[in-house]
Amino acid sequence: MTIRLYCFGESGNAYKAALALELSGLDWEPVKVDFFGGETRGEAYRTQVNEMGEAPVMVDGDLKLTQSGVIQQYVTDKTGKFGGGEDHYEVLRWVLWDNHKLSSQAGMTRFLMNFLPEDKRPEPVIAFMQGRLKAAYAVLNDHLEGRDWIVGDGLTNADISCCGYLFYPEPFGFDRNDWPHINRWLANIQAIPGWKHPYDLMPGSPADRA
Amino acid sequence: MTIRLYCFGESGNAYKAALALELSGLDWEPVKVDFFGGETRGEAYRTQVNEMGEAPVMVDGDLKLTQSGVIQQYVTDKTGKFGGGEDHYEVLRWVLWDNHKLSSQAGMTRFLMNFLPEDKRPEPVIAFMQGRLKAAYAVLNDHLEGRDWIVGDGLTNADISCCGYLFYPEPFGFDRNDWPHINRWLANIQAIPGWKHPYDLMPGSPADRA
Repeated sequence: MTIRLYCFGESGNAYKAALALELSGLDWEPVKVDFFGGETRGEAYRTQVNEMGEAPVMVDGDLKLTQSGVIQQYVTDKTGKFGGGEDHYEVLRWVLWDNHKLSSQAGMTRFLMNFLPEDKRPEPVIAFMQGRLKAAYAVLNDHLEGRDWIVGDGLTNADISCCGYLFYPEPFGFDRNDWPHINRWLANIQAIPGWKHPYDLMPGSPADRA
Repeated sequence: MTIRLYCFGESGNAYKAALALELSGLDWEPVKVDFFGGETRGEAYRTQVNEMGEAPVMVDGDLKLTQSGVIQQYVTDKTGKFGGGEDHYEVLRWVLWDNHKLSSQAGMTRFLMNFLPEDKRPEPVIAFMQGRLKAAYAVLNDHLEGRDWIVGDGLTNADISCCGYLFYPEPFGFDRNDWPHINRWLANIQAIPGWKHPYDLMPGSPADRA
């Protein structure tokens, strides 16, 4: 049975789940969530799809999972890929760090800077978050010095999680050219056979609303 | 061998690890991290203890783990407790949600409101974060309606993670009396034999610096 992923192109969190599914070779298809039309904030979505009011949501037969890190773990359990083997705690460590310090703040800052009307943008919040994010980029960049991958010698859920928002073109205070080790590591991910940009992997992009 | 946990009382993230260790019955001891003296921001801590510049850090013999969710998972793997059994994806889901939407933002907001000098407090950021947090409290409160525990019928890492910042007395926009289901659930946690408040479980509290 084909796995369905409720997602939309602009969501880096959905991208983490979609990229894991795609690169694992599992049979999956995206189901577009109309985030910008308010779908995730509606009562129907909360009661029938995800009480957290978030994407992604994965459905595999009777099983429904939410939170990108959970879906990544499911892909690992099903395929044996991306889990890091004996380094599995280290993989989970970076997935949690990403959820805590990187993607959570990058996603919010990108939303505030690009998907809110200009007169609604909370500039002091954006400036503050960009400072927090800079500290997170520095941690990741330092860690990647002399490494091709975040954990071990190949792609794991740590990479798939931490890259979630870093391929997007919309400005949010991240320029990969400022961070040489991050830049090289992102190129490694892009060189993986089957890699796709979020806007090519999932339905929906700012171009649809232009 | 006694497990050591680098922690400090003011850290709700450290509390999640300390509470899991304490309630699991494992032999452990806290090692105070002088966060307010700048220890986690120093070069020595980053190079020798945790490149992420964070607490908690757990050391068990040759094994060093960081990120509260990883330490919680380790306690589960070692003792069989708090993992949720067949509901393990649901437990991980709430641990990730907590790291993404609840503790990350509660911890930061509490820091900004209580541990920065008054003239350094970024009021627009605090107000914005309190709004985001209110949405998170609502998700948790709704989920707990009719439930004693976040997942299944007993304490899991989901509870231990989500309660991380919710017992602290310092104001950050959370009053448990505003959220009846959260309030009842927190009382359930407090009623567990061996439960301790963060300031009783770990060294360091604002009283030390008063």
